Amino acid sequence: MEGEMEFKRGIKKPFTGPEPKISIVRLEQDIIELGQIGRNSADGGVYRQAFSEADMQARQWLIKKIKEIGLEASMDGAANVFGLDNRAGTKSSFLVGSHLDSVPCAGVLDGCLGVLAALECMRVIKENDVPLKENLELVATSDEEGRFGGMLGAEAICGEITLDRIRKATDISGNLLSKCLEQVGLEPIDMLKAQRHKQYMSGFLELHIEQGPVLDKQEMDIGIVDGISGIFQWKVRLIGESNHSGTTPMSMRKDAFQGVCEFSGEIPRILEENGSDHARATIGQVEVKPPNPHTIPGAVEFSLVGRDFTEESMQDLEDAFRRALSAISRRRGLMFEFEEVSRISPTLCDKTMISFIEEEAKQLDLKYIKLPSGAGHDGQFFGKYMPAGMIFIPSLNGVSHSPDEWSSLEHIEMGANLLLRTLLKILGK
Amino acid sequence: MEGEMEFKRGIKKPFTGPEPKISIVRLEQDIIELGQIGRNSADGGVYRQAFSEADMQARQWLIKKIKEIGLEASMDGAANVFGLDNRAGTKSSFLVGSHLDSVPCAGVLDGCLGVLAALECMRVIKENDVPLKENLELVATSDEEGRFGGMLGAEAICGEITLDRIRKATDISGNLLSKCLEQVGLEPIDMLKAQRHKQYMSGFLELHIEQGPVLDKQEMDIGIVDGISGIFQWKVRLIGESNHSGTTPMSMRKDAFQGVCEFSGEIPRILEENGSDHARATIGQVEVKPPNPHTIPGAVEFSLVGRDFTEESMQDLEDAFRRALSAISRRRGLMFEFEEVSRISPTLCDKTMISFIEEEAKQLDLKYIKLPSGAGHDGQFFGKYMPAGMIFIPSLNGVSHSPDEWSSLEHIEMGANLLLRTLLKILGK
Repeated sequence: MEGEMEFKRGIKKPFTGPEPKISIVRLEQDIIELGQIGRNSADGGVYRQAFSEADMQARQWLIKKIKEIGLEASMDGAANVFGLDNRAGTKSSFLVGSHLDSVPCAGVLDGCLGVLAALECMRVIKENDVPLKENLELVATSDEEGRFGGMLGAEAICGEITLDRIRKATDISGNLLSKCLEQVGLEPIDMLKAQRHKQYMSGFLELHIEQGPVLDKQEMDIGIVDGISGIFQWKVRLIGESNHSGTTPMSMRKDAFQGVCEFSGEIPRILEENGSDHARATIGQVEVKPPNPHTIPGAVEFSLVGRDFTEESMQDLEDAFRRALSAISRRRGLMFEFEEVSRISPTLCDKTMISFIEEEAKQLDLKYIKLPSGAGHDGQFFGKYMPAGMIFIPSLNGVSHSPDEWSSLEHIEMGANLLLRTLLKILGK
Repeated sequence: MEGEMEFKRGIKKPFTGPEPKISIVRLEQDIIELGQIGRNSADGGVYRQAFSEADMQARQWLIKKIKEIGLEASMDGAANVFGLDNRAGTKSSFLVGSHLDSVPCAGVLDGCLGVLAALECMRVIKENDVPLKENLELVATSDEEGRFGGMLGAEAICGEITLDRIRKATDISGNLLSKCLEQVGLEPIDMLKAQRHKQYMSGFLELHIEQGPVLDKQEMDIGIVDGISGIFQWKVRLIGESNHSGTTPMSMRKDAFQGVCEFSGEIPRILEENGSDHARATIGQVEVKPPNPHTIPGAVEFSLVGRDFTEESMQDLEDAFRRALSAISRRRGLMFEFEEVSRISPTLCDKTMISFIEEEAKQLDLKYIKLPSGAGHDGQFFGKYMPAGMIFIPSLNGVSHSPDEWSSLEHIEMGANLLLRTLLKILGK
């Protein structure tokens, strides 16, 4: 019966690693159940905005699941959910998990896969009464997708939240964080209490979908993340002169949009000259003023998001972007302003953790590469306080943040088993 | 007293041409009076949208002024206002004038200068009982600024309006032309009756501000327009693939905005290779989808407005733009679509009219150049049915469609006197 279900769901090749193994049937069932919470029938996507009713409902669902395994469930003041296997009786825990909140019109794997695979690993470990040398703790963080401009749950755990931020933070629609917390029954000030001291956390491991095309294109089973890119986001303004498009000769124009276009053309050169192989930069939001076909753009406001994997190359990129914008503006008679909207430093994953994951991937005969993560993850904060590691599985066609986001069940099974084996390698007696 | 007023208003050098001369004091007074109608105290600009209350109020004001001179005033079914000096007793008239409607937040000269200078010329001619060999007729056209997608008043006079268009035309906010006409007491079908047969119109002459920087920069008094540029407006769509900006390597992107930027960079080359010295092209409206700093633009919709002075070079430009968009799209893996929103052919001004204006400019010792008009004007339609001519005066800093639009009173006086001399040259006995 179990074999038949697996067949139906599309498993072509059963997983044949050593025992204990995770159950892909249970894991898939959990993915389906959790994927119903916050589902929007209009677009087929899931929307569990941080601290929304759907998000809190998912957290209650997870608490129920944790208790069913016989583990200790709790939620802190930042809405992070924990499930503790305290059989080792240590003061500190090793953390495993991911996040439960989602972007609008999301798929069912981003974040959830890591939480549910961790839940399944802990279920297997508990069922088999595998002895551990340290407590193991599931963590399902809150607001990883940045509703309030960061990775709030992980930041709260690491003690990076201030009272001032709790009071002032708003989302893009102007809703106050403190109000949103109160609406779901949380006391804003309790977010400060979510902080855990370093000595109580020995490490963090996360399974996640790649959210990019690299593993899928290279037909890999697994990506071992060696670092998480830093990111800076700028709001840039080029100001020229708005004029009649028919009467102003090309040579007398101060066309702000032409300035943006020239800058955009420089991006590949700037990345090649200043960044690593994995450096990226994107202009994603552009507002031309006034927006009139017959008027030469007098001003353009646009976003610039840059990413790279070392602090040094991030700084080189920032310098080079500034120089290019400044030179283009000077040459074209434009004014140039920018503000830094946000900046997160790059994080390197822990070398021992990487080598453990790699050893187990070899043992399980998985095709893997090491790669950096271009997307931000909770590990970026955890990595500053403790050894952190990440395992990726391929995203079909690199799609994510979309109802089309998917990974094959084979890869989900491989990823969850690799997570289990790595946990046992780290914590097994 | 008159001299003192002129001095106050900033006239530095009194105009010393032959008699009869226009009165700059009366003309300025008319400009100030008309400039109050539709004035918005919030932005300091004038807004007389075609067929609005303010527009109709301006037309009634003009009718009163025409009657005060002792001329025959009338308004046709398209709200064009006429003032007839029928002393010559001919069947046909020579037309002189411009338009009364305005863009939002406009200045007081665009259109109005031509109407009021023509009114002053006719006043001087009537006062001095100057004999004419043909009837002279003031025309103040309606909807030159294109509320309903053209130059409706001039088109109606030339018989280019169909019943179908009267019924279906809407403005950008979706208001039906027919409803707008009814709201100000006009019968939509009467717009058809505005048509005048060619034999009743012998020519058209218009004074207008340049609305561009060329005369001002070159310190000219007068521009004699030798042609009015043709214009094509496209709505272009480049479609790529929306993806996570952090996880998608630069080499795997199909970034629609990068495609637009590359095309924008090609515009100068395309104009130089295919257009005349006066060819122009502008990207004025740009919409990036989805507008998200962290997402690679999956689609961009933008406007492309091209202008040139011969039909042949317009076609060469259109071909070259299509080829460039198609090549860029192919290379970047984008899809490319476009639709032609509108297209108006270029018009050459009448050679005899140009030579008459030039002779009179020389007589008046004015510094002039011949230049094409990059902006569209009523003359584009009139020029297809009768000899048409245009006189420009400098716009301070090239500014127009703005409350800052202005021309010095000296230039206004020179322009109006040149208009008068040219009318007398054409019609004087």
